[in-house]
Amino acid sequence: MESCIERIKNDIENITKITATPNMGCTRFSYGKEDREVREYLTKEMKILGLSINVDGVGNIRAKYMDNNEDKPSIMIGSHIDTVSNGGKFDGLTGVVTALEVVRIIKENNIKLENPIELIIFAEEEGSNFGTTMVGSKFLSGAYKLEYLKRLKNDEGITAYNIMKDFGLDVDNVENEVLKKEEAKAMVELHIEQGGILHSENISIGIVQAIVGMKTYRVSLEGVSNHAGSTPMYLRKDPMVGAAEIITYMEKVAKEKALKDTVATVGKIHCQPNGSNVIPGQVEFNVDIRDVETEGIEIVAKELINKTKEIANKRGLKYSIDLVGESDCVKLSSKVINAIEETAIENKYVYKEMNSGAVHDSAMLTGITNVGMIFVPSIDGLSHCPQEETKFEDIKLGCDLLLGTVIKLGNMKVRN
Amino acid sequence: MESCIERIKNDIENITKITATPNMGCTRFSYGKEDREVREYLTKEMKILGLSINVDGVGNIRAKYMDNNEDKPSIMIGSHIDTVSNGGKFDGLTGVVTALEVVRIIKENNIKLENPIELIIFAEEEGSNFGTTMVGSKFLSGAYKLEYLKRLKNDEGITAYNIMKDFGLDVDNVENEVLKKEEAKAMVELHIEQGGILHSENISIGIVQAIVGMKTYRVSLEGVSNHAGSTPMYLRKDPMVGAAEIITYMEKVAKEKALKDTVATVGKIHCQPNGSNVIPGQVEFNVDIRDVETEGIEIVAKELINKTKEIANKRGLKYSIDLVGESDCVKLSSKVINAIEETAIENKYVYKEMNSGAVHDSAMLTGITNVGMIFVPSIDGLSHCPQEETKFEDIKLGCDLLLGTVIKLGNMKVRN
Repeated sequence: MESCIERIKNDIENITKITATPNMGCTRFSYGKEDREVREYLTKEMKILGLSINVDGVGNIRAKYMDNNEDKPSIMIGSHIDTVSNGGKFDGLTGVVTALEVVRIIKENNIKLENPIELIIFAEEEGSNFGTTMVGSKFLSGAYKLEYLKRLKNDEGITAYNIMKDFGLDVDNVENEVLKKEEAKAMVELHIEQGGILHSENISIGIVQAIVGMKTYRVSLEGVSNHAGSTPMYLRKDPMVGAAEIITYMEKVAKEKALKDTVATVGKIHCQPNGSNVIPGQVEFNVDIRDVETEGIEIVAKELINKTKEIANKRGLKYSIDLVGESDCVKLSSKVINAIEETAIENKYVYKEMNSGAVHDSAMLTGITNVGMIFVPSIDGLSHCPQEETKFEDIKLGCDLLLGTVIKLGNMKVRN
Repeated sequence: MESCIERIKNDIENITKITATPNMGCTRFSYGKEDREVREYLTKEMKILGLSINVDGVGNIRAKYMDNNEDKPSIMIGSHIDTVSNGGKFDGLTGVVTALEVVRIIKENNIKLENPIELIIFAEEEGSNFGTTMVGSKFLSGAYKLEYLKRLKNDEGITAYNIMKDFGLDVDNVENEVLKKEEAKAMVELHIEQGGILHSENISIGIVQAIVGMKTYRVSLEGVSNHAGSTPMYLRKDPMVGAAEIITYMEKVAKEKALKDTVATVGKIHCQPNGSNVIPGQVEFNVDIRDVETEGIEIVAKELINKTKEIANKRGLKYSIDLVGESDCVKLSSKVINAIEETAIENKYVYKEMNSGAVHDSAMLTGITNVGMIFVPSIDGLSHCPQEETKFEDIKLGCDLLLGTVIKLGNMKVRN
């Protein structure tokens, strides 16, 4: 009893045809035209399987397969269908179509479980509309209130509340739809790794132990903008060279002074006035620090603050450091991890215990239910770009592991 | 016999009221509405002095004061009236209003010189319309042909040719209006320093010996864009940290390995995709290198190329280095420098022999006539910004020096 690679491929290909940017990757924002088309495609498939479908106030699709034991807590499986701008085919969608395939096989093989299966499709994971990620799962977990959607706006200034309402959602009801402990036995999300570890080690399965925590700082250095020709080196207060020193040092700290898995990234920089022949007046950049151990994050954060002070003093620059984003490290459920690992061992799948450097929807639910995640490799580690790719053989293997895990969890008694 | 600070101040204040950006510095682009108003103001003043005014095909105003010896070569004085966006009050304009004041005094005092004085107001110095600087002086020097104006476009895609024609200029005639050797005995431009040397040394007068040469390189580093959380440090090909290393090194080279006056600046940087949580795929930045000695420029250029290769190899990055701008070092005329310095000594002005880190209109004319420049201090070295400032006492002193120099040159016989 195993998953059908052709059906998975068929679903992914049908859905990824629906994009706002043909030939330039997948662009499928929640609450847009493409999102509606994909929802229609999936709804049709789910109806064929006889799932009982409910869409909540922010657009999360919760579809239950319950051939018995309808009042017992569900085993939830799924992921998201929205994408970044010009993103890839596999991010999110892989977890959705494999979950669908799992239900298909369970139905075809008439497998009876103690618990119903719930297929969950989270809305607005990528933050493409409003700049806030995991809106769907955060609402499902009860982390946000309705009021938040009335403040949250897209680039055109339209509130999330109005966009969701216009999409046909009963958004006013959203606070009544928080996931209750008694509704869920476990949540298992299959996702592409979005990093290069599995690919570089040639391993098809990652079993996620923890999801990294994160701190993002915005550093602003202010010097004196001046003519690049008329200002001798000794009279300069140049924030660009100051920024360059800090950026170089951040890499060194992450590699040499922090913990094994600590990463630090400067992906965003802004220079004022950004003229070729002008010494900049201001340089602003973000430092994104992550680790599964809080200690690793704190080491880098402390070094960032100290180094910035040191450089600013040395160069006569003004500076500010603001914490602009933060999330805690999350350990996943040992019960679910064990179920996944036992299934892998029984089936002789080679796997790697690893951490997730990205935060995912299911991590939002760790306060409510037992959460586990399965990773499949991203070729060359690429994600959030048209080149994002995962071998269908690996997706099939992940799907089989998800199937086995669901069956194991469905027969197991796990106390919430 | 000296210049009148009130008249200079009055001219600067009247003219700087004419700006496209009230309360946000001076914005006065050549061929725009504000330019026309300022031309009208200056034309009125010049007519009061009885100057014979001619406007050439690109909009340079050439106005001759000739109470005798009309067929002899002129002593040219002046600068430009256009500005950058949200620029200052003193850049360019100081050289124009002091030249006007010099003519006023010569007329008032009925001073007879062997040579006529020509007031020159260069058009489109800043490159604000078309991204090309010193268009007026380059045409006057014969460096460009009419054809060039038909290719040169502003941001809206309108050619320089059409803009000049619409402004009412006889642009088709421009090639016939190149400055001839026999027309000019010397060119003296008074300008603000646009750097902080005079201000920091508390000296009111700079006598320019040479104008720096320049090379500008565009460096592009290409790595692998990836998720900032999912990609361990050891799997990264991060062009941002590579760029930071090069930028830091460029400062070190300019300060420690090149010559005394060499400067190197990274004022412009562009990062792709520039997302806080994404390792960049590409970082591009410009390196602007200047010196009055070609050797200083070459030392930094060579180190830039070697360091970029080394960093790219070490980090597995692709790279390209393109020379995107270049100008030669220009030594100014010792004859004019001597005339300025002798005048300063006779009048007991404290001055500094210095170089210009910026290129100026008069430098375009060094192949045709004897060129000299007088600098007055920029407070805190600021320029190209609303905070640009020069003390009127310093401008008056510069104007008196310009006056004395013109009288000295007008009595001297200098062979072209």
